[in-house]
Amino acid sequence: MLHSNLTVGSNGHLFFNGADTVSLAEKYGTPLYLLDTDRVRERCRLYRETMKEAFTPDSEPLYASKALSVKGVYRICREEGISADVVSCGEIYTAVQAGFPAEKLYFHGNAKTGEDLDYALGQGVGFFVVDNETELRRLNEKAGDRGVRQKILLRLTPGVDPHTFEAVNTGKIDSKFGAAIATGQAESLFVCAQKCPNLSVMGIHCHIGSQIFDVKPFCDAVDMVLTFLNHIKEKYSFVTEIVNLGGGIGIRYREEDPVIDIRETILHIGSFLKRKCCELSYPMPRVLMEPGRSIVADAGLTLYTVQNVKVIPEFKQYVAIDGGMADNPRYALYRSRLTALIADRAGEPPVFQCTVAGRCCESGDLIGEEMFIQTPRIGDRLAVLVTGAYNFSMSSHYNALPTPPIVAVSGGADSILVRRESLEDLTIRQE
Amino acid sequence: MLHSNLTVGSNGHLFFNGADTVSLAEKYGTPLYLLDTDRVRERCRLYRETMKEAFTPDSEPLYASKALSVKGVYRICREEGISADVVSCGEIYTAVQAGFPAEKLYFHGNAKTGEDLDYALGQGVGFFVVDNETELRRLNEKAGDRGVRQKILLRLTPGVDPHTFEAVNTGKIDSKFGAAIATGQAESLFVCAQKCPNLSVMGIHCHIGSQIFDVKPFCDAVDMVLTFLNHIKEKYSFVTEIVNLGGGIGIRYREEDPVIDIRETILHIGSFLKRKCCELSYPMPRVLMEPGRSIVADAGLTLYTVQNVKVIPEFKQYVAIDGGMADNPRYALYRSRLTALIADRAGEPPVFQCTVAGRCCESGDLIGEEMFIQTPRIGDRLAVLVTGAYNFSMSSHYNALPTPPIVAVSGGADSILVRRESLEDLTIRQE
Repeated sequence: MLHSNLTVGSNGHLFFNGADTVSLAEKYGTPLYLLDTDRVRERCRLYRETMKEAFTPDSEPLYASKALSVKGVYRICREEGISADVVSCGEIYTAVQAGFPAEKLYFHGNAKTGEDLDYALGQGVGFFVVDNETELRRLNEKAGDRGVRQKILLRLTPGVDPHTFEAVNTGKIDSKFGAAIATGQAESLFVCAQKCPNLSVMGIHCHIGSQIFDVKPFCDAVDMVLTFLNHIKEKYSFVTEIVNLGGGIGIRYREEDPVIDIRETILHIGSFLKRKCCELSYPMPRVLMEPGRSIVADAGLTLYTVQNVKVIPEFKQYVAIDGGMADNPRYALYRSRLTALIADRAGEPPVFQCTVAGRCCESGDLIGEEMFIQTPRIGDRLAVLVTGAYNFSMSSHYNALPTPPIVAVSGGADSILVRRESLEDLTIRQE
Repeated sequence: MLHSNLTVGSNGHLFFNGADTVSLAEKYGTPLYLLDTDRVRERCRLYRETMKEAFTPDSEPLYASKALSVKGVYRICREEGISADVVSCGEIYTAVQAGFPAEKLYFHGNAKTGEDLDYALGQGVGFFVVDNETELRRLNEKAGDRGVRQKILLRLTPGVDPHTFEAVNTGKIDSKFGAAIATGQAESLFVCAQKCPNLSVMGIHCHIGSQIFDVKPFCDAVDMVLTFLNHIKEKYSFVTEIVNLGGGIGIRYREEDPVIDIRETILHIGSFLKRKCCELSYPMPRVLMEPGRSIVADAGLTLYTVQNVKVIPEFKQYVAIDGGMADNPRYALYRSRLTALIADRAGEPPVFQCTVAGRCCESGDLIGEEMFIQTPRIGDRLAVLVTGAYNFSMSSHYNALPTPPIVAVSGGADSILVRRESLEDLTIRQE
């Protein structure tokens, strides 16, 4: 199977972290998000331990919580002692509600509002990842009003394209995020930050992209960033304490996707960084990384019920399910290619080629085209794999469909993390 | 201006249906959806009156409520005496909550569940638009259990592509919706329906697409459908009472978009249909149409606040706002091209070329590229036009952003239709 938490039981059903998915669909109804919280925990530990080994002992992962921003996951991060990256008041609020310490939050965003800054300062958020000079000045003023010195990182655009492997690529320099090193704007943001009396520049942040299966773009980014930091050190005698390398380590959605070893990748980046620091005589920084997808993606799975199989002779075969783009907009948005299977007969060969169609009244509502699944029957449970990241968090109410629940599966037991939305919930804010 | 409900006030502000948008942004905060309910009402009447004139006196529009499924809009449809098309229990529930009579609802969907059918039968939904044989058999059984004879329409795929103007196009025949005329599946669905003792076939439905600015594809669909219906009449002596032509009349999002006259288009379709019926000696059916976008799209507008202007020399200019793909996913999903302007200085020339970037931590979160707006300042209100359809209804909580409110603007007064979501609302279902 695609990931180690997927197995086929002796009854032929798909099991997820040891639990029978057909029974869970029966118990909770469909559509249903499942979350293997043991896998989430294991990934937090893998990042935490490997990063200590690869970089400095105080290096650590921040969970990029936009991938799945729910109290249950913040709780696990808290218990595993890692920090988190948040991108809105909503994420800060959710984390704090889960008992997550605000001082371990890193606040991202290219368009933080004045209210956002006030709220985050009020909650005692540990670090602001400042995107631009407007935010810098606003934050400096607001921190001053409160009489605090706020710790910040500066978001830089290193100009590395993870997919073309070009060291400098306009596609990255012209990002909506951060300040580009190549245009001199990163340096000018640094100079501006140094002049802000109420801000303390603790380091820099860069993020080169997502679904990266190669270590080279990460090393390219380290190279660009350390060269820049060394220039800053020589020109301004400023030594960075923190280097945040962002996220981006890829996750397999299909058998055809490449395999990446998270531990090996981090260790490799660590060696490269150490070598580079040594070369430049630059003090080894505390390193942060921001895994989101690689913490929760394969810890998730979505169950649907097959409502209809439509064979259009000489054209196409459709399998229509009771969910779709409202709970999983990845195909509609990005043509993301996913894996699906019939949970009732998961051990059978996937010989049925079809388009899996969602239930929304929209032609673009598909889970995937040219998918191969076990021969489906009406009422079967269809499992879509690797949906832990950017599914619940991107879900909509399109077609006035209630959002499915998230059920945690851990050590053979199941429990509700998020309850199913009711019809009453849908109109609760309407006059 | 793009639509007649947009004007520039003597203070230079953008006015929407007579209301100062800058004042409304001040009063309610941003992001903010505005809905010109006078425009919604006027469009309901235009469709209602024109359809009576173009077809038979009992012909009428059904509001395709997936475009904006909120109680306030169902109320207007009820008051204007038109019917509505719904696609889920959530939409049925919302309509009924608004006092909309269930017998005037038409229930669509390619993957209705057993629970959907039970709920809709229980609520007394007037018509089911049956998509496929599985649904047909399920509905027949459930209607029988309740001892009712349920009125249905059959969804057909006429094989008309509205954009290539080809009469038969595989892109349409292989739709996930309905039964194709060309493959013989439409006829077989009809035969199957006729054998269902608890169902009463009142007519057929077809929908050829959306954003259509030409009358020809509608006439092509009428041609295909009436030819098919005449074949059914001759072979089975069955005469259709209702022909539902679906939706699809286009709306201008930009000055460059073509203009379409709704009244002229309907009258033209009416003449064509009458001629065709006459030719075939087919009794003139009751005609239904399903306008959604053309009822609410230009009745909507979204207000944002400019958070940051980022000029990357030699590359790009960004204007970053406090909303984005979470409240308006149209560009992220479909690269839909929109119009934006600075509401504070709406009368000035739109000389500033930029990418309008949303606040979500996602590169794809853009409202548009190569847009021309008035020279922006931080704190300005940015208005994105024509957002009444498929914005609120497709909105998500991505980045844990609360959903903006909808404020109705009517006769110079403003009132809340949907209140702003709070941080507390975001976690209310979470353990």
